Amino acid sequence: MANLSVADSIGVLVVMLASAKLLGFLAMRVGQPAVLGELLAGVFLGGSVLGWVDPTADFLHVFAELGVVLLLFEIGLETDLRKLLEVGGGATLVAVVGVVLPFLLGYLVCRALGLPVLVGVVAGASLTATSVGITARVLSDLGRLQDEEGRIILGAAILDDIIGLVILSVVDRITQGQAVTPWVVIQTTAVAFGFLLGTLLVGRFVIPVLFRFAGNLDLPGTTTMLAVLLALGLAWFAEWIGSALIIGAFAAGILLRGTPQVAEIERGAAQLGHFFVPLFFVFVGTQVDVRVLNPVDPDNRHTLVVGGLLIAAAVAGKFLAGLAPFWIRGRKSVIGVGMIPRGEVGLIFANKGLASKVLDAGLFGAVTMMVMVTTLMVPPLLKVLFPPREPHRTPPEPEGIEDLVTEA
Amino acid sequence: MANLSVADSIGVLVVMLASAKLLGFLAMRVGQPAVLGELLAGVFLGGSVLGWVDPTADFLHVFAELGVVLLLFEIGLETDLRKLLEVGGGATLVAVVGVVLPFLLGYLVCRALGLPVLVGVVAGASLTATSVGITARVLSDLGRLQDEEGRIILGAAILDDIIGLVILSVVDRITQGQAVTPWVVIQTTAVAFGFLLGTLLVGRFVIPVLFRFAGNLDLPGTTTMLAVLLALGLAWFAEWIGSALIIGAFAAGILLRGTPQVAEIERGAAQLGHFFVPLFFVFVGTQVDVRVLNPVDPDNRHTLVVGGLLIAAAVAGKFLAGLAPFWIRGRKSVIGVGMIPRGEVGLIFANKGLASKVLDAGLFGAVTMMVMVTTLMVPPLLKVLFPPREPHRTPPEPEGIEDLVTEA
Repeated sequence: MANLSVADSIGVLVVMLASAKLLGFLAMRVGQPAVLGELLAGVFLGGSVLGWVDPTADFLHVFAELGVVLLLFEIGLETDLRKLLEVGGGATLVAVVGVVLPFLLGYLVCRALGLPVLVGVVAGASLTATSVGITARVLSDLGRLQDEEGRIILGAAILDDIIGLVILSVVDRITQGQAVTPWVVIQTTAVAFGFLLGTLLVGRFVIPVLFRFAGNLDLPGTTTMLAVLLALGLAWFAEWIGSALIIGAFAAGILLRGTPQVAEIERGAAQLGHFFVPLFFVFVGTQVDVRVLNPVDPDNRHTLVVGGLLIAAAVAGKFLAGLAPFWIRGRKSVIGVGMIPRGEVGLIFANKGLASKVLDAGLFGAVTMMVMVTTLMVPPLLKVLFPPREPHRTPPEPEGIEDLVTEA
Repeated sequence: MANLSVADSIGVLVVMLASAKLLGFLAMRVGQPAVLGELLAGVFLGGSVLGWVDPTADFLHVFAELGVVLLLFEIGLETDLRKLLEVGGGATLVAVVGVVLPFLLGYLVCRALGLPVLVGVVAGASLTATSVGITARVLSDLGRLQDEEGRIILGAAILDDIIGLVILSVVDRITQGQAVTPWVVIQTTAVAFGFLLGTLLVGRFVIPVLFRFAGNLDLPGTTTMLAVLLALGLAWFAEWIGSALIIGAFAAGILLRGTPQVAEIERGAAQLGHFFVPLFFVFVGTQVDVRVLNPVDPDNRHTLVVGGLLIAAAVAGKFLAGLAPFWIRGRKSVIGVGMIPRGEVGLIFANKGLASKVLDAGLFGAVTMMVMVTTLMVPPLLKVLFPPREPHRTPPEPEGIEDLVTEA
């Protein structure tokens, strides 16, 4: 399947998108966020059920990554930096506790089961990061990105991603048998945070000039394409200097929020997003192997026990982290639940562990199981805890002659 | 370069899109169609100049092919089938003469130079097909798709593509040393034309029902995504049953032109098109090797002679084909020139010839040179022969209270 023809690659995209739209629509019909349907579409299409989509195909990685990049760009466009910084203290506490606690719990679970130190470190690390894509998408589906709880979750998830990068580079070195010096940790941390601060500072001066120029060009689609190029370019640059793609895309969104063309950019990004974003969630779904959940197979018993305990550690760790900012008035249970999904970030750790042979197939299955359950449980749970807000629909109240005549 | 990281793949896309937009803009500034700038951007980025983009990367094929599929879908949305059939006789004659004449001229050129029969067949075949993407894009840039000449060119280019499929399958068999029976030719021809007729007939009944249903769903982006899925799905199906991707996409566009949501679909497809379509033209450009044009290198002399004669055959063959429908009143010179660009279709033949060792590196270079010159010469030439029509801009003439109030 690695050598798909171009036509068959397009066929795979058609099947992924059609299933995503269909199951997304059905999920909404039964009162769930669309993203749950898209993830399940991926599970069905993946190797462990139908086997129609092979997530190892190179081109799919690119499409999926463009999807999450565009999603974080769209989220950035909706994010008011000042309001995000207002909840900075709470978000930071949630992020830090939400990394330390799941790591410790995961490590202790593995050690209690008699597994080696290295396994405990990798499994613990896989519990640390939140999938900001899934959380942000659910909040956006529910119309809750602007609420205090929503902003804390988003801020903490972004910080989590930056901390996750640092942990990933540390785990990389450990699994390759290299030494971890404090210097390496400090450097990685400085780059990851430095990129975000530097971009936001420089961008404040450069972006308005650039988009005033673009506004004068009067070519169809120029503003949107310039915005998308900025998002993809900053994403690439972020990864290149040692931060992450999605951090760059998020920064681009925050920067463009201030331009006069923001409404046009939002519409254009949404059109591209309708195409790329579902591909990301289906892609995440295809990487899930449901066979490890089959309790009839005796090989799975150990996996199920380890996986079950890891799930408990994963849920408890993030839930307790959500309670940490004691001074917040909002529903703190919502915050913790919003941090639970591990999604593709957890799978990256699991894959590193498998590739470096720190995790065997059974332990890899246990981590996969933890990722699957934490990812799929959150959309419905959050929906119950955090009822969707009606989208802004101004009621048709004609207030003057303009409305009457325009509507005629 | 085959194993680019995902981030670097996104970086390649950013570089391709940014160069396309920049050179496209500069081309327009000097009065040329934007597509010329996009092709040149590809030439610069390709292996023979900067070497920043490797056209053999799998994911680029998928992005480029999606670009030409979306382009033909957009062209289909603008195409009135009845008006296209009105010029059916002329278009058919131009297509048939435009296949036979270039093939004969190319074959005779090769035989006159003492080359084997098989080389003559492959080189002749590479002269037959028109790159409908480049021609349609130039006509669209010039606002001339609806003119009689424009419709004849488009119709002939579509027919050319179908005939090209038949020739390609014949050449495939010849270069693999297989026998070519009349049955194979008839079967391939029937499938290629049958797909188009069958789809248009069935679609006339199915599409209105489908889109009436979609219109009732009231989900953002559903109509556009359904339309894009239909275009990609029909493209895939067309290739699967033995026709071509772009024929399927074109048929989807023609079918959707009749739906009430056509304006919304056009806007959505255009947003996706702004992203994907330039990638196709840059991709075509990256496959051009300008080193074969260097006359200082003695190795190139033979290539330059063969290439020069092939260019003469390529231009004369299509130009004379344009004069064939003697009863047409329009500018027949425009028709022939519009058929000249060989683009990616000519390169497919050249690659087949090289892979099967029928063409050596020098002859491959000669065919590449023919493709490059015929592709790059047409946008400026067509611009001179066929001055651009001003885009529809209704002058601000307030005709009633509605306009006065709406604009206030």
